[in-house]
Amino acid sequence: METVLGIDPGLRYTGWAVVSTAAGKNTPQALAYGVIKTNADDMLNTRLATIYDDLCAVIERYQPTSCALEGVFFGLNAKTALSLGQARGAAILATSKQGLVLGEYPPATIKLCIVGSGQAEKEQVTYMVRQLLGLDHDPKPDHCADALAVALTHLAHGSQHDSVSL
Amino acid sequence: METVLGIDPGLRYTGWAVVSTAAGKNTPQALAYGVIKTNADDMLNTRLATIYDDLCAVIERYQPTSCALEGVFFGLNAKTALSLGQARGAAILATSKQGLVLGEYPPATIKLCIVGSGQAEKEQVTYMVRQLLGLDHDPKPDHCADALAVALTHLAHGSQHDSVSL
Repeated sequence: METVLGIDPGLRYTGWAVVSTAAGKNTPQALAYGVIKTNADDMLNTRLATIYDDLCAVIERYQPTSCALEGVFFGLNAKTALSLGQARGAAILATSKQGLVLGEYPPATIKLCIVGSGQAEKEQVTYMVRQLLGLDHDPKPDHCADALAVALTHLAHGSQHDSVSL
Repeated sequence: METVLGIDPGLRYTGWAVVSTAAGKNTPQALAYGVIKTNADDMLNTRLATIYDDLCAVIERYQPTSCALEGVFFGLNAKTALSLGQARGAAILATSKQGLVLGEYPPATIKLCIVGSGQAEKEQVTYMVRQLLGLDHDPKPDHCADALAVALTHLAHGSQHDSVSL
């Protein structure tokens, strides 16, 4: 069995999803997904520790065999990029501390893999994630769908390869 | 005795410095300083883990009572800001894991505090850091001088106050 942890990092909301494929089966299954929320009123170090600790708990619980991160769309301003970078640093460190090799996929690659077009809308990604995993409802909020999408992309690319750039 | 850890974070070079003031004395003393280097050929998760682990070791060894970070100058592009953010995330998490309250000072505030002008050149900061600490040589490389400068700024602002914004 192959189990992938997908992460869509952000300082306010970090989406995570655990998706697995049983040996000899083609249909992936969502084991669990959720969002780590941090409080904007808290100190930055508290918020980063929440992201780190909660992801460590997810990894501890579901024991993924590999991990994939949603890459960054570079239409950001410097302030947003700095904030996102800090959240990513905490998330990446959590996967590293648990010895997981980490892959990263640009948003357009994820959309291409899930929907068939790099310019797909969010709603299309959510719809296809639901179909691919056989869910009876849309995974909500958006950050969960994004985390599921990056996990599915990693499975599709062969998550045992460590050729994925980071 | 008050002992401050100053950090100038960066993905390639993270400067750190431990500065203390003995009770009843005005002259601060540099206990130790150095630079954490990471290899650009390594995976990002390895590089962030190096920053985190090495800072944890410094904190373990010198037991600072508080910590201060050099803030960000926002003339950066998004890519540089993202990279810096990831390094900052790892550094902040190290201080948080060890329970240190963290202050942050913008570059101009540090220059104003150390040299008397927010527009001071790097060489002036290095020169004044050397004078203030009674060092017999310039602290090198630059990242050490910057880490010493932010630690001195934190001492000057009263490092016991937790009113410093982050």
